[in-house]
Amino acid sequence: MNIGVTAPQGFRAAAVAAGIKPDRLDLALVVADRACPAAGVFTSNLAQAAPVLISRAHLCGGKARAVIVNAGCANAATGQDGLRDAREMAVLTARAVSCAPEEVVVASTGVIGVPLPMDKVRDGITKAAAAVSRSGGAAAAKAILTTDTKPKELAVDVELSTGHAKIGAMGKGAGMIAPNMATLLAFFTTDVAVEAGPLHHALVEAVGESLNRITVDGDTSTNDCAVILASGASGTPPLAEDGEDFQAFRRALTKISRRLADLLIRDGEGVTRIAQVVVEGARTPTEADRVARVVAESPLVKTALHGGDPNWGRILAAIGRAGVDLRIDKVGIWIGDVWVAEHGCARAYPESEAAAAMTEDPVRLRIVLGLGSASRWLWTSDLSRQYVDINAHYRS
Amino acid sequence: MNIGVTAPQGFRAAAVAAGIKPDRLDLALVVADRACPAAGVFTSNLAQAAPVLISRAHLCGGKARAVIVNAGCANAATGQDGLRDAREMAVLTARAVSCAPEEVVVASTGVIGVPLPMDKVRDGITKAAAAVSRSGGAAAAKAILTTDTKPKELAVDVELSTGHAKIGAMGKGAGMIAPNMATLLAFFTTDVAVEAGPLHHALVEAVGESLNRITVDGDTSTNDCAVILASGASGTPPLAEDGEDFQAFRRALTKISRRLADLLIRDGEGVTRIAQVVVEGARTPTEADRVARVVAESPLVKTALHGGDPNWGRILAAIGRAGVDLRIDKVGIWIGDVWVAEHGCARAYPESEAAAAMTEDPVRLRIVLGLGSASRWLWTSDLSRQYVDINAHYRS
Repeated sequence: MNIGVTAPQGFRAAAVAAGIKPDRLDLALVVADRACPAAGVFTSNLAQAAPVLISRAHLCGGKARAVIVNAGCANAATGQDGLRDAREMAVLTARAVSCAPEEVVVASTGVIGVPLPMDKVRDGITKAAAAVSRSGGAAAAKAILTTDTKPKELAVDVELSTGHAKIGAMGKGAGMIAPNMATLLAFFTTDVAVEAGPLHHALVEAVGESLNRITVDGDTSTNDCAVILASGASGTPPLAEDGEDFQAFRRALTKISRRLADLLIRDGEGVTRIAQVVVEGARTPTEADRVARVVAESPLVKTALHGGDPNWGRILAAIGRAGVDLRIDKVGIWIGDVWVAEHGCARAYPESEAAAAMTEDPVRLRIVLGLGSASRWLWTSDLSRQYVDINAHYRS
Repeated sequence: MNIGVTAPQGFRAAAVAAGIKPDRLDLALVVADRACPAAGVFTSNLAQAAPVLISRAHLCGGKARAVIVNAGCANAATGQDGLRDAREMAVLTARAVSCAPEEVVVASTGVIGVPLPMDKVRDGITKAAAAVSRSGGAAAAKAILTTDTKPKELAVDVELSTGHAKIGAMGKGAGMIAPNMATLLAFFTTDVAVEAGPLHHALVEAVGESLNRITVDGDTSTNDCAVILASGASGTPPLAEDGEDFQAFRRALTKISRRLADLLIRDGEGVTRIAQVVVEGARTPTEADRVARVVAESPLVKTALHGGDPNWGRILAAIGRAGVDLRIDKVGIWIGDVWVAEHGCARAYPESEAAAAMTEDPVRLRIVLGLGSASRWLWTSDLSRQYVDINAHYRS
């Protein structure tokens, strides 16, 4: 079944084992039947990988025909040579699929500071371009993985007043806690007809409500990106940004993006348990977000989550050091439906119920600041021995 | 040998097993022969434990006679009842040693959100006050521990132009990464004669150059405190803040505080390796500190440290997300003496030398930003499976 980036009309894909990583698919190509509206969002890290710099520049034109992605090497911290290599990936892909180099999005994931093995990449691009097909999405989803244990691909229907369309997606993790080595890549395709401007707005919104809510220690990598191409091949009329159908598309994009985020965090490095951290009663969304992030990223909260220990004192201590001007004597904390702290102090509650709430999926940690009406949520993962094992020897 | 808080003249101490924790010393008392100049620095966390609030208020007077400390219960997030209990600890101690309650410093460490078992505390204070002796420092150093694997006590000589004096110290960890549950307690005694004002200045400086440099994820706990009492019992004349002898005292206090910090981080939870992170070439010390902290607290950097992996790409990625306005193309990185990155890019370097540099003690991570002349350093620890094991089930 075609459930990923080739689910929508107008896209083909392929993947090859180019030899960048040993004995596995490591180069993915997604091609639209013709150049089409496209948009991307990229890491805010000041250390930006060469493919990020190239793709960001290319997407300024609001159009793309192809996406070329390699695993095994991030092409980050590689200077002018890295930029030349990323540009060459775009040029070779453009030549192979007959478009302008500026219509190619380039992405890389893997170790930082190592040059791309361009001989292998060149061969791989030629072979991938020859192999693209309407059923190639699944192979592409495999080829972009690093420490992920399984591929992530999804598709959702978009019900428009004028007919049916689809959005497809593939992504790669996100070693949760910190995106590992350190790349979250997400690629969306859709066969709705929509211009690049509104497409970009919809992408920013969708990512803000999903992928940006799982970057659990504020870690933005050198290579993070999320890109969408809109082929228009469903045959439905172009969406106007002020129309009902555009709202349906936005909702569908946010929905698939959230489902992708859920897949990514659950397959995070060493993850055995997930929590949703909700902060309510803040003065501003920014302050709510800040408190939620400090709690969600606290190693003590994350290890307690791992152990299933309803240790709300660690949550309170994290709130207190969040750098937000708040009143501890107004803070309330809930674990699941169990109200464990009030006015910043312990409440009498059944310990067995709090322990049971730590077995929910996801665990629900709710913090009420009592200062205003703003709220934000985040998904976080636990911190396990497996995370340490994976990351202590990732490169060597 | 008397190497801790009873090493300086004019102090006695004792510890008892009050039953707050099962079958071990859990209540420590340090008493000066008479009320003497004292100073303290406390957690900046907005969630402050009751003993922190009480002791901070008491030290406003610049005098103290006794320090009473319990392990096993933090008396944090305990509201008005907790304040009443902390006050009662001061009152009972004052009665037992014949001073004013405002001359007693109270500290607690242990689980948050649980009330103190005051029956046991009351009995314990009475027994401890009856047992204080000039050799009681070692027992006191044991009684204040939580997850530490060994007691930490130290003494240094202070060579003054007018004679000899001493500074003694005891401390408790600091589950490194984040102070666990979450208390770093440090107590200093000295027999120099010095007023409370200069004593406070010297303490702030010493802690700033030591204990504040090992709080590796910015975690300040609900209970952190560092306190010093100066008995003047060495018989040397009072130190003037502008005199040479005061400088000698300042240096000695910073020295013992650094040695205590070193003991604390090395006995941190699950710690197997230590690194010194030095950031140079920053515009301001604040920006240098910010970059150093983000690097030192990055789970990816800490797991690489654990694995002995010279994975400088993770350091670069952490620098890039530090929130400091810097230029990645000016950044240089050294591991030990190996120059691994220049202009934000990989350099050619012998991998074996970089790997060898990861076995040094401490590992030296040096970052040069190329923007100015400010610098800061921090000590950090690795992130190990043992840390996860200790913290996943601390409370239950």
